[in-house]
Amino acid sequence: MVSSPVVNTYPLSSYTFGTKEPKMEKDTSVADRLARMKVNYMKEGMRTSVEAILLVQEHNHPHILLLQIGNTFCKLPGGRLKPGENEIEGLKRKLTSKLGANSPALVPDWQIGECVAIECKKLFLVHLSEREYFAVPKNLKLLVVPLFELYDNVQRYGPVISTIPQQLSRFRFNMIST
Amino acid sequence: MVSSPVVNTYPLSSYTFGTKEPKMEKDTSVADRLARMKVNYMKEGMRTSVEAILLVQEHNHPHILLLQIGNTFCKLPGGRLKPGENEIEGLKRKLTSKLGANSPALVPDWQIGECVAIECKKLFLVHLSEREYFAVPKNLKLLVVPLFELYDNVQRYGPVISTIPQQLSRFRFNMIST
Repeated sequence: MVSSPVVNTYPLSSYTFGTKEPKMEKDTSVADRLARMKVNYMKEGMRTSVEAILLVQEHNHPHILLLQIGNTFCKLPGGRLKPGENEIEGLKRKLTSKLGANSPALVPDWQIGECVAIECKKLFLVHLSEREYFAVPKNLKLLVVPLFELYDNVQRYGPVISTIPQQLSRFRFNMIST
Repeated sequence: MVSSPVVNTYPLSSYTFGTKEPKMEKDTSVADRLARMKVNYMKEGMRTSVEAILLVQEHNHPHILLLQIGNTFCKLPGGRLKPGENEIEGLKRKLTSKLGANSPALVPDWQIGECVAIECKKLFLVHLSEREYFAVPKNLKLLVVPLFELYDNVQRYGPVISTIPQQLSRFRFNMIST
């Protein structure tokens, strides 16, 4: 018989929470970001992000720590690896950047455990012809969103959709009027 | 000189939009889903999803088609591949399921083009010790969310976070009171 791996969870009340200055986007302009992402994408072909599941207990039930950006978008603490960076070291770096105190004397000793999921997502450009019929399931809404609205709007669209304008920068748009 | 690849975009007005019955979750119970996901994860080790960038034009600017679930969560049309399924065929299947008419005579001939991005995400369990100090950047909120709140709540938490309870089902939680 194989026994299940164990996760110890401690009461939320045993942890201390403070604040620190905002974590801003790495690039100050869309042009900088575009340049950086092009270089990254060409070098790597793939962007890998690592994220942490941090569990505490409250009312005798396990709870997870999530970061909320703006009023809607929730994410796990973590982020993208640098080119060639080790996953475990990268996750420690990201956790310290997102949740660690700003003191070199207090660098947390994160205990990175099991990898519990790997999600791989590939985005394909689909070439629409001049006429198409779309049938939208009634529980979903189809939005038509201008590309400029996505730029850096991670609050609303998340980290993948908000970088589509940069991914598409190598294409030439041929606007056909009919 | 290398010329940029071209995307033709047609006016939004040249497309027709209808509705069809809701696309429901594949499983009727959390237990079914848990069983299916365990099998998938064990077989595959990794889950791959394929998503489509569909572009139209409006006011002489490219627009993208997004699906909105509930009032907040936006996603690209697409979804998870079946084990061993070809990416292009899988994306065609998902596009037809999400946006195609419900008529075998009208199966759309999706033209799947360039892969513009690959995002790989790994989720690690992080073992917290009994005491930790968390410093939260002022532009973010730290939420403490019970695991049961995540279950199948793709509307609020998206497709990755909402499946964390299932990913954690192989662990035994050791609730330590202090």
